[in-house]
Amino acid sequence: MALESGGEGVRVEARLVPFPKSLSPEARQYLARSVTPDGVPLTLGGAPLAHDDLAGWAAAKAAVGAMMLQMMAPAGAGLKSSVETLDLGGALVHVATPQGGGDYRAYIDIHGGALVHGAGEPCRIGAGMAADRHGVRCYGVDYRVPPEHPYPAALDDCVGAYRAVLERHAPENIIVGGSSAGGNLAAALVLRARDEGLPLPAALVLMTPELDLTESGDSFQTNRMFDIMLPRPLMDTNLLYAGGHDLAHPYLSPLFGDFSKGFPPTFLQAGTRDLFLSNTVRMHRALRRAAIPVELHVFEGMPHAGFMGAPEDLELAAEVNRFVADSWGRGA
Amino acid sequence: MALESGGEGVRVEARLVPFPKSLSPEARQYLARSVTPDGVPLTLGGAPLAHDDLAGWAAAKAAVGAMMLQMMAPAGAGLKSSVETLDLGGALVHVATPQGGGDYRAYIDIHGGALVHGAGEPCRIGAGMAADRHGVRCYGVDYRVPPEHPYPAALDDCVGAYRAVLERHAPENIIVGGSSAGGNLAAALVLRARDEGLPLPAALVLMTPELDLTESGDSFQTNRMFDIMLPRPLMDTNLLYAGGHDLAHPYLSPLFGDFSKGFPPTFLQAGTRDLFLSNTVRMHRALRRAAIPVELHVFEGMPHAGFMGAPEDLELAAEVNRFVADSWGRGA
Repeated sequence: MALESGGEGVRVEARLVPFPKSLSPEARQYLARSVTPDGVPLTLGGAPLAHDDLAGWAAAKAAVGAMMLQMMAPAGAGLKSSVETLDLGGALVHVATPQGGGDYRAYIDIHGGALVHGAGEPCRIGAGMAADRHGVRCYGVDYRVPPEHPYPAALDDCVGAYRAVLERHAPENIIVGGSSAGGNLAAALVLRARDEGLPLPAALVLMTPELDLTESGDSFQTNRMFDIMLPRPLMDTNLLYAGGHDLAHPYLSPLFGDFSKGFPPTFLQAGTRDLFLSNTVRMHRALRRAAIPVELHVFEGMPHAGFMGAPEDLELAAEVNRFVADSWGRGA
Repeated sequence: MALESGGEGVRVEARLVPFPKSLSPEARQYLARSVTPDGVPLTLGGAPLAHDDLAGWAAAKAAVGAMMLQMMAPAGAGLKSSVETLDLGGALVHVATPQGGGDYRAYIDIHGGALVHGAGEPCRIGAGMAADRHGVRCYGVDYRVPPEHPYPAALDDCVGAYRAVLERHAPENIIVGGSSAGGNLAAALVLRARDEGLPLPAALVLMTPELDLTESGDSFQTNRMFDIMLPRPLMDTNLLYAGGHDLAHPYLSPLFGDFSKGFPPTFLQAGTRDLFLSNTVRMHRALRRAAIPVELHVFEGMPHAGFMGAPEDLELAAEVNRFVADSWGRGA
């Protein structure tokens, strides 16, 4: 678009942007530990891998997977649910059954990891954690990932798993949730299931969701470096995932879906320092415009994926638990 | 607080941060017009005035008032309400009566302007605009401002006006609203009225509110320069307003109030580029913790005070109108 006059943006000076004192000590210490003394996020990696470097991607996935497992270790060690791994609807699914055996309700958990990472053990433990947390059977979809399996493999797996869960549970007793890349797939799963004539789940939980693979939102620029977990955009992995498909298609970027055709009540969360803040608030507006019930929760100073156990994270978890508990049985 | 290790913040490089393409053309053009070709916000002023420079403040108020009137001119020219100016409860109040005469309902409008600007004609026109918009009688409080009248003069005027409006309207038929500094005074008015044993209004509308004069929130740092309307913090006018009182007292910084003692259902709005984004999301959390009904609306790329008539502003206005219309008669 041609701008009639003025400037194309705002010029900012080089500076150290301090972590805010408005956070809990635990949150501030997490942020402090996440950067060098010079203020460089430790997650800032080097040059991206070539898309055909299969050995390189395998090594990267192993390293990220080990890091995820380390972060999950405290929760994973105390898991109370039992988890079995099944082929459901053509997809690998970790089915976690809570103590007492579960009931008619189902939570479908789509794991995160930039649409590349997080398969296998982190996904399995995440399913158990979700079953413990919500006290219902949880289906953790261990979807296929690139470079071996680009789009639409992951979404095919999610939709296949949803079809299988629909054979076991009524749609009003199913809630779908995902964080980050899992939020992308959770929302895309709902859009595609709807387009294929399947019933909608009772509710959707989208935590700091990667809803726009075109990265057109403002926070992809404004929160660069401020987000110590995602200090820069992820276009390279987005292109790896898309495998030549249109990044702007609603099945790849659910933000651009038509929600007026139906969408479940949705819980949306992001942080003010979150690279995906714009994704989240734009989705909130899109759902409001379509008159879909939606909650927006934005946390002060929070980066992508939270503060790893600070009081703010517990407050957020309590909001999610309340939303999930209140959503069972909602007509879709 | 001593940080155990790591860094005190994040280092960012000098760069031009572009205005996002995710906005409407009208919004982008407003942003483009608001900066120099080099990317410097036109609102970026020079050194602050000395607090005892009465002539300087008078000139500044005249200049800002003229600018506010220019922005309001399209709406002001078409005003349908009639406005009379009264002394109510010791305060100067512009009472706007909508076409048809109004009814049992009242909207109290507290104007913005950094707690210094916006008195007189902008306040009077704003009251008429609010009466037109909501179709009810509107009381625009023309509170006293510094340097001649520091805290608590403005809040005294707001509380006095609220007492007077309570003699004319039942509390469940009163809604209080304010933008920016007006959001500060609207929330402080409610806290003080409650502490003085007065009944609560039916609802509160806080638009990009200046709820924390200590400026402890993250967005006072992260959104510096990104917010073309408020490209830097306002501590100098905060100190002028406070006149030596504690900036952290809840009557000066309502964010630090105790909401568990009662607070009305509240509408909160900010933009992702808003200097007051942290004020807004922190208030949302504080009200959620106290189980107060609250709505949070965060708009993509929006600076303080919006885009001056873009489609995004109309969408926001429709949300406010809906919230106000649904709030009449709520038990407080």
